[in-house]
Amino acid sequence: MTKLAYDDNNVFAKILRGEIPSHKLYEDQDTYAFMDVMPRGEGHCLVIPKKPSRTILDVEPESLSAVMKTVQKLARAVVPAFGADGVTIQQFNEPAGGQVVFHLHFHVLPRFDGVALKPHTGQMEKPEVLAANAERIRTALAQLGA
Amino acid sequence: MTKLAYDDNNVFAKILRGEIPSHKLYEDQDTYAFMDVMPRGEGHCLVIPKKPSRTILDVEPESLSAVMKTVQKLARAVVPAFGADGVTIQQFNEPAGGQVVFHLHFHVLPRFDGVALKPHTGQMEKPEVLAANAERIRTALAQLGA
Repeated sequence: MTKLAYDDNNVFAKILRGEIPSHKLYEDQDTYAFMDVMPRGEGHCLVIPKKPSRTILDVEPESLSAVMKTVQKLARAVVPAFGADGVTIQQFNEPAGGQVVFHLHFHVLPRFDGVALKPHTGQMEKPEVLAANAERIRTALAQLGA
Repeated sequence: MTKLAYDDNNVFAKILRGEIPSHKLYEDQDTYAFMDVMPRGEGHCLVIPKKPSRTILDVEPESLSAVMKTVQKLARAVVPAFGADGVTIQQFNEPAGGQVVFHLHFHVLPRFDGVALKPHTGQMEKPEVLAANAERIRTALAQLGA
């Protein structure tokens, strides 16, 4: 595998710089969480480090730890927010690993008994649905004191 | 979702206690890594915390941080070990989330261009294949100084 450099023009870098909008869920010094605009299920959200890193291979361990603290907060929040029966965490590295945007990110997917994940179709969810789901997650985070 | 207690009789607890064997890859004070005996692809391995925790919902953040440091070590090792083109990380919580063994674990899956993950069939890999793949990962870990 060729070691590829971080490209500052990826979509998540633009979100972090505020150049394109996102449905923000949570932010701290090291991490940012927001709705996936092409959800594979209700409440599908993403957690990224603020420091540039391409994959789990090049991220600094401290940055990865911070990301996981936020992943846990989100996982805990989506359960009450959507009445989920479980949660799936996914993280893809390089195209062969399933990665599409080349800024390290973790998927947090609320899961429901008997409901499979939708394939990654590339279809955008309606903004009003994303906004409503984001509000449910932010409310749950607040109730959990996160 | 009902909050379920940790069950000390799960397979990974038994592996940690040495009651059933595993193809060990790495161990430190807080974490243990070993081969998945029902691999969804070549080199599929697992990382678990030593402290009992059922899912990402109940694990202590420090334990989760330690697990992710080991996940990163394994991700970095499987690339040279198998000439992988990418890596996929998966972590399942509760049956609806895809969890089968109820001790928190992260899947580390080497990925190859054009090769899909095999479905989780429940079929055991041959011990000699697991042993050979474990040796490749341990060698790569040693070369990385991990």
